This record gives sequence, C-alpha cells and structure tokens, in this order.
Amino acid sequence: MIKVGVVGYGTIGKRIVDASVDSGFDVAIAVRRYTPKLDIAIERKFPLYSMAGDIGIETQGDFEDFVRECDVVVDCTPKNIPAENFSYYKNVKVIVEGGEKHSLTGFSFSSFGNYEEGVNRERARVVSCNTTSLVRTLIPLKEYIDNVFVTLIRRSVDPWDVKGGPINAIVPVLKVPSHHGPDLNTVVPDISIRTMAVKVPTTLAHLHVVRVKLKKNMTKEDLKYIFENTPRIRVLSGYKSTADIIEHFRDLGRKRYDMPEVAVFEESINVESGKAYWIHVVHQESIVIPENIDCIKAMFGEKDKWKAIYETDKTLGIEKKKECYR
Amino acid sequence: MIKVGVVGYGTIGKRIVDASVDSGFDVAIAVRRYTPKLDIAIERKFPLYSMAGDIGIETQGDFEDFVRECDVVVDCTPKNIPAENFSYYKNVKVIVEGGEKHSLTGFSFSSFGNYEEGVNRERARVVSCNTTSLVRTLIPLKEYIDNVFVTLIRRSVDPWDVKGGPINAIVPVLKVPSHHGPDLNTVVPDISIRTMAVKVPTTLAHLHVVRVKLKKNMTKEDLKYIFENTPRIRVLSGYKSTADIIEHFRDLGRKRYDMPEVAVFEESINVESGKAYWIHVVHQESIVIPENIDCIKAMFGEKDKWKAIYETDKTLGIEKKKECYR
Amino acid sequence: MIKVGVVGYGTIGKRIVDASVDSGFDVAIAVRRYTPKLDIAIERKFPLYSMAGDIGIETQGDFEDFVRECDVVVDCTPKNIPAENFSYYKNVKVIVEGGEKHSLTGFSFSSFGNYEEGVNRERARVVSCNTTSLVRTLIPLKEYIDNVFVTLIRRSVDPWDVKGGPINAIVPVLKVPSHHGPDLNTVVPDISIRTMAVKVPTTLAHLHVVRVKLKKNMTKEDLKYIFENTPRIRVLSGYKSTADIIEHFRDLGRKRYDMPEVAVFEESINVESGKAYWIHVVHQESIVIPENIDCIKAMFGEKDKWKAIYETDKTLGIEKKKECYR
Amino acid sequence: MIKVGVVGYGTIGKRIVDASVDSGFDVAIAVRRYTPKLDIAIERKFPLYSMAGDIGIETQGDFEDFVRECDVVVDCTPKNIPAENFSYYKNVKVIVEGGEKHSLTGFSFSSFGNYEEGVNRERARVVSCNTTSLVRTLIPLKEYIDNVFVTLIRRSVDPWDVKGGPINAIVPVLKVPSHHGPDLNTVVPDISIRTMAVKVPTTLAHLHVVRVKLKKNMTKEDLKYIFENTPRIRVLSGYKSTADIIEHFRDLGRKRYDMPEVAVFEESINVESGKAYWIHVVHQESIVIPENIDCIKAMFGEKDKWKAIYETDKTLGIEKKKECYR
Repeated sequence: MIKVGVVGYGTIGKRIVDASVDSGFDVAIAVRRYTPKLDIAIERKFPLYSMAGDIGIETQGDFEDFVRECDVVVDCTPKNIPAENFSYYKNVKVIVEGGEKHSLTGFSFSSFGNYEEGVNRERARVVSCNTTSLVRTLIPLKEYIDNVFVTLIRRSVDPWDVKGGPINAIVPVLKVPSHHGPDLNTVVPDISIRTMAVKVPTTLAHLHVVRVKLKKNMTKEDLKYIFENTPRIRVLSGYKSTADIIEHFRDLGRKRYDMPEVAVFEESINVESGKAYWIHVVHQESIVIPENIDCIKAMFGEKDKWKAIYETDKTLGIEKKKECYR
Repeated sequence: MIKVGVVGYGTIGKRIVDASVDSGFDVAIAVRRYTPKLDIAIERKFPLYSMAGDIGIETQGDFEDFVRECDVVVDCTPKNIPAENFSYYKNVKVIVEGGEKHSLTGFSFSSFGNYEEGVNRERARVVSCNTTSLVRTLIPLKEYIDNVFVTLIRRSVDPWDVKGGPINAIVPVLKVPSHHGPDLNTVVPDISIRTMAVKVPTTLAHLHVVRVKLKKNMTKEDLKYIFENTPRIRVLSGYKSTADIIEHFRDLGRKRYDMPEVAVFEESINVESGKAYWIHVVHQESIVIPENIDCIKAMFGEKDKWKAIYETDKTLGIEKKKECYR
Repeated sequence: MIKVGVVGYGTIGKRIVDASVDSGFDVAIAVRRYTPKLDIAIERKFPLYSMAGDIGIETQGDFEDFVRECDVVVDCTPKNIPAENFSYYKNVKVIVEGGEKHSLTGFSFSSFGNYEEGVNRERARVVSCNTTSLVRTLIPLKEYIDNVFVTLIRRSVDPWDVKGGPINAIVPVLKVPSHHGPDLNTVVPDISIRTMAVKVPTTLAHLHVVRVKLKKNMTKEDLKYIFENTPRIRVLSGYKSTADIIEHFRDLGRKRYDMPEVAVFEESINVESGKAYWIHVVHQESIVIPENIDCIKAMFGEKDKWKAIYETDKTLGIEKKKECYR
Repeated sequence: MIKVGVVGYGTIGKRIVDASVDSGFDVAIAVRRYTPKLDIAIERKFPLYSMAGDIGIETQGDFEDFVRECDVVVDCTPKNIPAENFSYYKNVKVIVEGGEKHSLTGFSFSSFGNYEEGVNRERARVVSCNTTSLVRTLIPLKEYIDNVFVTLIRRSVDPWDVKGGPINAIVPVLKVPSHHGPDLNTVVPDISIRTMAVKVPTTLAHLHVVRVKLKKNMTKEDLKYIFENTPRIRVLSGYKSTADIIEHFRDLGRKRYDMPEVAVFEESINVESGKAYWIHVVHQESIVIPENIDCIKAMFGEKDKWKAIYETDKTLGIEKKKECYR
C-alpha cells in the first residue's frame, strides 16, 4: 500500500488527504502549526507529524520521521515553501503543486498532456488549476489549433481567506502576455498560446475566456461534442455565472461542493470565421486533485494512462462513459 | 405517512424537500417554471406539479391537484407570493416562512419559543432566520434578561443570486428600531428587545452583535455553559469570520455546507458590569429547516416538544447529548 | 447660444449638465421624479421641467414645454426609456446614449471615428463607454490592424447603486462573440473585431484586455508613442489596479474624480510575434462626456473635427499638446 | 509661519498637507520611498525629505534635516511606525494619529472633547476616525447620557488598497467589548460606553449603529435639532446607504469627495422608551483632518476653542452658522 505524505493541511492538502484515502492509499500529514481545521484530521486519526517542534497536539514525530515513513510526499504548503522543504526530501518521491517553479522538479505533469512521462518519476510538479483547465480543454482539440488566446479572470483568494483583497477593484497582471501560456507549454510544448490575466473581487472560481484560431474546420456542434465526450469536462446548460454553477454542485451533494471538472458554459460555445470560442469555469480549490492522484499512480508504475484516469474519476465520482477514456 | 407539499424549489424549498424525505415524510413539489436546478428533483422522481400550466416538463397535475394530494403545504415562494397562493389552500394545513406577515396565518412558530401552541394548528408561519437565531439563544437565558439590544449585520443575497447588491456599500435599515425585535415578540411576547440592522456586501451568513442587560447575575462561564448545552447552538473556538465557519462546515461534509445551528464565537462571549455580550452567525439558507420540520410534527399532533426537537436534530445530524433536550 | 435639454439627472445626465455649462451652452433639465440629488441642480437654478405632472418641486413646465424650449435634447434616461420619449421629440435635435439601439437614430457617433458624419445631423446616438474607449485606441492604429480581440471585464453597477449585483461571482455574457464588437462597427465599419465580456463585482471602472493582430510592423515603443500622442488617452506608469488609478484622479482634484480619458497601463503595452497587447481602463461614468459635447458641436454645424475636440478637451481640462489634435 | 512636517504621504498624510496649506501653514513632507502618488507633491514643489537615503527623487535632506526644519511633525505613517520614528523627534512638537497607542504621547486629543488640554502641548495623539465621530456626536448630548452602546460596522481597507480583504465575509472583533469605547474615554473619561465591532467587505466608509440610554428626557426632534446645530455633523435626508452619501459629496465637488463631517441618516434618528438611537457614517479617509488642524492650533497657543474650530471649518468649507460654534 502506497503511503502518501501530505505536507500542509490547507485548501489543497486536505483534499489530497481525502482523495488519497478514497484511492486506497495510506495517509500521513505533516503540519507546521495547529489550527482548528486540523481537528477533523485528528478525529479521523491520521498520523500527524510536526514540522516545527511542539505544536500543542500529539504527533507521531518530526518532519524527518514523516519523510522516512512515506513513499511519496505531496507538498501542498504555500508558494515557495516547498523549495525550502526540499532538503528534507531524501529517499522519497515528491510531488509539488503548480505554484512552484517548473525548475524545482524539472518536470511538470498534467494527465491529459504527458501522463506517460510521469511513469516511474521521482519528482513532479502538478501544474496549477488554471493550466490544468487549459490542458484538459486544449489537448482534445490539438489537431484543430493554430493558436490560442486566453483571458483569465481570476478569483482573488479562496473562500475561507479573509486577508486578501481586492474588495472593489480589478487588478491586472501587467506582465503581458502572462505566465500562464508558458506554463501550459511546460506540459504541452507544441501549442501556440498567449494569455493575459486579471484578478477580481470574488472567491468562488476562476473563469477563462478562450479564443482559438483553427487550422482545421470544425463546427460548434463538433466542439460541443468533443467537450461532452472528454473526461473531466462538464458542459452545463442554463447556468449564468460562477455562482449558480457552484450552487449546482452544492445541490449535487458534493463534499465541500467540489467541482474537479472544468465547467464549460454550453451557450458560450461557438465557432465563427475560423475561430472557436468558449468560456469555462475553474474551481481552483479542487480541479487539480484528480491530476495529483493520477500523478501518484504514474510515479508508482501504472503505465496505462486512461486506466489511471478512469479509476481516479470513478473514485472521485466524476466518471463519464467508459468510451470517453481513450 | 404525512404528505408534505413544498411550494417553490429555491433556497428554502429544496432544503425542506431534503429534510422532509429524511424525516420520513412523503414529498411533492409545486413550481411556477422550469429552471435547471429542478433537474435534481426530476432525477429523484419527486411528483412535480405546475402552478402555471405547461412549463415544459412532465408534471402530475396543476396547483389544485397538488393541494388536494397534500396533507400540509410548506409555501417557500418569494415574499408576498404565499399571500396570493392562499386562496388555493383549502382542506390542507399550511406553513409559510418568515418573510410573510404574521397576520397571514395569525400564528408565528419557533420551536424553543412556543412549540406547544403549534400542536394541531392548521396554519403557521415559521419565523425568519434572524428571529430563529434570537429565539434559540434568548429563550435559554430568559430568566436572566432585563432587556436585549441586537445589531444585525445581514448578508445581502444568497450565494447563487447574482442580481442583488450592494457591491461596495453598507445599507442600513432606516426604520429604527428595526422590525426584527417585534418579530421575536410574535413568538415570545415577554422579552424586551430592540434591534437595528444593516445590509452588507456578503452572501455567506448574517452576523448578530448581541448585548443583554441582565436582571440576574451570571458569569461568562455560565453563559458559555448554557449555549454549549442548548440544542441547535454551536459554540466554536478558534474561528475568525463567517468565512472560516462556513469552511468548517464544508470540511465536515455537510450537504451544501449547511449549518442549521446558530454558531456562537466562543471568544466573543462575555459578561461585564451586568451586561452579557456575544456574537453569533446565522446561516440564512438552512437555519429554519429544523423549525419547519418541528412545525409539521406539531401540526400533526406530536405533543412532546423535546421529543420532536431531538428527533429532528438526529435526522439532520445535528443532535447534542440527550440531556440537552429539556 | 445653444440650449441643451438634458433628460434625466443620473450618472450621465448630471455630467452632461456640468460639461454643457462649461462649454458655454444654456441648460435645462427634465426629470420624472424628485430625488435628493436634484437639490444641487435646484440650488444652481437650472430651469427644471417635469415629465410626470406634479413632482413636488417647482418646475418651469411639462415635457412638451421643455422640448419647445430646447435646441437639442440629450436623453440620458435609463435603457429603452429614450425610445418611449421619442414621440415628444419634434422640431428639436436629439442625442441618445450608447445603451440605446443604433436603429433608434440610424446614426451612431464617436468623435475619432466619424465626427464628419455628425455635422448638421438631427439625430445621433453617442456610443457606449466601452465602445468609446475602443474607438479612441483603435482609430489611431487603424493602418496596423489586421484584427482585434478584446475581453471586456465590466464593473457591474455604478458606485452609488446598491441594488445591482453580483456580490461574489463572475457573470459572463454568454452570447459569444458579444455585441461590443458590432457596436464599434456602427462607427468604424472596417475594423475586424471580436469581443467577449464578463461582469464582475466592482463599481469603479471597466477594464479591457486587448489583443491586436498586426498587418504592419510596429514596436512596443511605437505603440506607446501613439497612445501618448493621441488625445483622450492617458498612459499611466506605476499603477496596479483600477483602484489606484481612480485614487490618482481623486488626488488630481477632478470633480467627482472623473476620468474622461481612457487610461492605459504603460507596463501592459507590448508587441510580440506580430501581435500588439495592452490593458486599458474605462471610467464608465465620465468617458462619453467629451464625445457628447463634440456631438452637439457637430450637430450645430462645427465642421472642424480637431478644433471641436481640442476645445472640448480644453474645457474639460484634459487637453494634450496642440499638435496631438490632427 | 508655522512649519508643519508631514511624515508619510498616504491617505491621511496627503490630506494633512492640503489642509495645512489651506490653513496658511508652511509644509514639508518626509517619505520612505517614491511612489507615483508623490508626483503631485513634487509638481506642487513641496520640500521633500527622505527617511531612507537615496529614494530616486530630489530631496532637501534626510529625516534629521526634516525634523530640524519643522515646528511640528504630524506622523501619518502606518500603525506602529510612529513609535519607531520617535527617537528622531527632538525639539519639535509631535502629533500622531489614532492608530497609535495613547501611551505613546500620554495625551489624546479631540477638539470637542478636550481642546483646552491641547493648548501649548508638545505631544498629542489625535484619536481615530471612529472615536472622532463618537466624540462629535456624544459630547453635545453629554448631559442626557446614562450609557452608550455602539456597534461599529467598519470598512475593511481604503478604496485604493487592493491587498486587504475580506472579499466575502464578515469579520468580527472578538474582543468584546471592543477597544473603541476605552479609546473614547482617553478623551472624555466620564461617558459610560461599550462598543462592539465587525469588519465588512466595503471600502467607502464606516457606519455606526448607536443606542444611548438617556438619563434626562429628550424627543427625537430635540436630538435632530442638536445634531443640526453642532459643527462637523451633517444630518442628511433621503439617503439610503454609504454609497449614495459618498455620491452626494462627489456631486458637491469636494476634493477627493471628502466628507470630514459625520453624516447622520435623518430617518434613523429616534427616541423611544428612554433610549435614543441613530445611525451615522464615518468617512475614514478625511474625518480626522479638521481635528488635526485644530490640534496644531492648540499646540501653538490658540486658546479659543470655538474660534479655532470655526476657522478650521471655514478653511475646509464645512462651516455651519456662526452661532453653532459655542
């Protein structure tokens, strides 16, 4: 049984814990301090390790003990902290998240883009929520794509975070084009893409406005068909905003209303004068969870990409018809 | 088996449906139009009735058929619509929600305040989310209370609603004192209370700032003890905002992250110079659901108040130790 | 002396009044009801007319009297109301704003795009704030443009408006491409443009993310130079958001902090692989004011476009060096 | 001519500069770094001093030079920085703002409360925006007051600040009662007051919900009359929110739409069962400016409180009838 060590118990960490348990992995957790949200992990009796001495709760050991116990660590600590933690990661596989630099692991992973290259890897970076959504929607269109232009309208902080703003402003990324395009190219080098981004006062989800110049004809119906038959993409009709999409996932009874799928507004899908357009929604809190689980499977030798993806999706309750997985 | 007819499938309606099913009631739903959120009700095969002729989905009949089929209707349509629906409500018990006027039913219900008066009633109004939270927290303190002053800081719209504002303003209720005090008195006439209210740009929850002038001594520890041992109140320590409280309920895996309990910030509880103070959070979407279920039980003859409340709480997964129910 | 009749005293109306006075026009105001914001107009002794009988303040007459008194009416009432007012507009020139349909006047005006066509017109529609900003930035680039793609990130309501949302969501325009591109083409038919739009929870300003495919080489320095030497465009360096740009105009002491200029973030200006990129900010409350004043001048026979524009800019205190006006 | 040295050129600093100039004082400015907002100060040729060596613009000297040049420094740097600056303040009078601790100067000043104690002082702390509004509204009611309870609903950050949140939450001050009551007592020790506070996602203004238990009878009309005849209080009728009040000050043409007056919603004023109630709005950016100017006057020997206040008000354009100043 693979033992997954999750470092940090925040937005991503707690979800990796849940998904790892559901996937049949053993789980341990390392944290730097006690906060009330840890109570749930304590109640569920996960082995806890302290990265900072006595943190006022019972732990199984220190960070070195933790690393020794684990087969793979998934470092979900805030941006730039994983780089500091790297000196501890000896004799253990390591996954970091998309906030870290590609150079930290030298390999960026996203299931649809380069699962095969992840097989038996020692170190991997699972790309960010925004990039994940672009890999998922662009890879199935690859043969049609001449070039891609995306405007990312980003939520500013996660729902629980009351420290970050803005409250009443739009904050553009002034580096133009933004880093999101090159980040996609760490996984899929041969898609020509440019991106620009702004941050807006909302917490629920990112939203992407996508324009693809086509090099091969397709219709709006083709585009819709492809999205409907690609795993981890939901085409939703009748919805008007990020808010009513999230409400739908609350109504579905998803834990924490998570939406690991990219949600495409059906009414936004269009093809006109050789360009394809659509708008999709990225649930920043949960979208990378399936790719993290896939990545663990790849790192421990699972060679069959679509088998890995399908099983992850079944575990997470987001699977489509079997024939979509190929 | 009691057949509960839920009118309207919005914020409250959909939750009454879920709680009614969990409580072992039969459920039917009447709506005025189709919206995508109804898909889940369709999938679960609830009998649907149309209040407005052909609405593009298969229904079991019209509004009159619906009323004939039901033992009690819970009218969860928007403010003032229930009054218009009343002409249809013949030979059926009727519950309306707290947005309606007391005079519509001539009886306002809140379990802790006046359960007994609800027994075998034909018509009842379950008081609003804000009033419910005040009934729950003030009734157990009744013998201590000289008078109460509450400032209500209200969320402006529910999370899915993208039409209502404000985006960047505070909107006071200029009628001072506000109607919330008198509304409490429809249930508990003998508590002297004044309230003032403002609306702020958030969707998650209301927050109440409470000051009670005491007529009988108590300590801060007494107050905390009372809240900890009263059903439907959660005393939470280590939380800083409505947002991290909601996050906690997401982490708990509650459906739609619902929090039917009043959440009191433990750190805010204080008694000083003959006044008690605290701050509590009201989840406007779900707090009235237990009281609605209790009300149905009362209307159909259940005389044992604490039995009704306890069983509702068990059904909803929010029960405390048995001895709290008395 | 031209007598300008301003219909409606809201966001646009009150600014047209101020700019008309500053431009040496005579002013009258017609309104449908009294609100406290009218007090300032009363104090300044503008002749007021009622569109709806007795409105509780002293007026000079009814709507027909008003129209008879005026040489031109600028109808600034909310969307679709101007169409209803049209039956009153006899023997008077008429300007409507960008919320109205092009077909209402059959002619859409924007100074940089088609001033000449406005000369001696009887009826004109001054295009919307978003379109105005695109006319101003794209016309000086026209010879370079192969095609344009713009993502509009729109403020949801004006700062004083507490009724409209969303509070915490992104609301896309699901008609893709959006109507903003075709609207530009009512003024400048020969620019190939596609637009997509979203609405976000902010009140201060719209923001546009622009990508231009070039058909003629230019450098980033060329682009910056053109913007710096075009009237009604401000290139701002060192600013990070719509909020600190607005703060700058507060600090400048502009009345109501108005920014009739398009503000381009200098750091966002870029040219790469045959595409030009930039991000600009549109102050929805004031950007169309200069074009409205220009339009009046054109309608009353001023043939010299750049003279009209220069004088308007001087009057409004936003003029650049004289040589920019050609 | 008094030379006022303003330390920090942020929200408060830049307004102290403007008001000092208008009051006929000489002005110098010390800053720690260059930001674009300084351009306006550079253009207006204020002598600038650097607190941190070379900051890339021309300066007249370092922080010691600055202190030597000035008769009084008004330290408007962020919370806790003034304490660090204190070692430099030799042979100069010093004013700090309300974010600092009372103990830093040992004397807290607010014109209506204790002007006389400020006369010829060497060191003073002008109390915060929230406390200022309470001093102004409570002092004229002093003989009526038994005790006061205030709920402060605070804006979270100033309009230009895009870093601070929350975006979608209410954040209570969990220390109950909050520090605002004791802060009032640093100026007026003999008013019995308790306060509680929350932070909400808005930038425009704070809002206070006030309840006063009366020890002497008054009517609602008395209360209104007192507010209408007290300087620096505006009673506004017909307004609904912080947003339309701010809009009013934009329309008035106030620089930066500043509202140094406390704005009381006329409709909220009420007296009932021995309690007075009202709701007022605090423009956090500008409300303390008059008191800072008064404080300078007092420190330099002006003994006539009402003369000082009246002249400050005239200078700032907010004066009432002369007979209100006594």
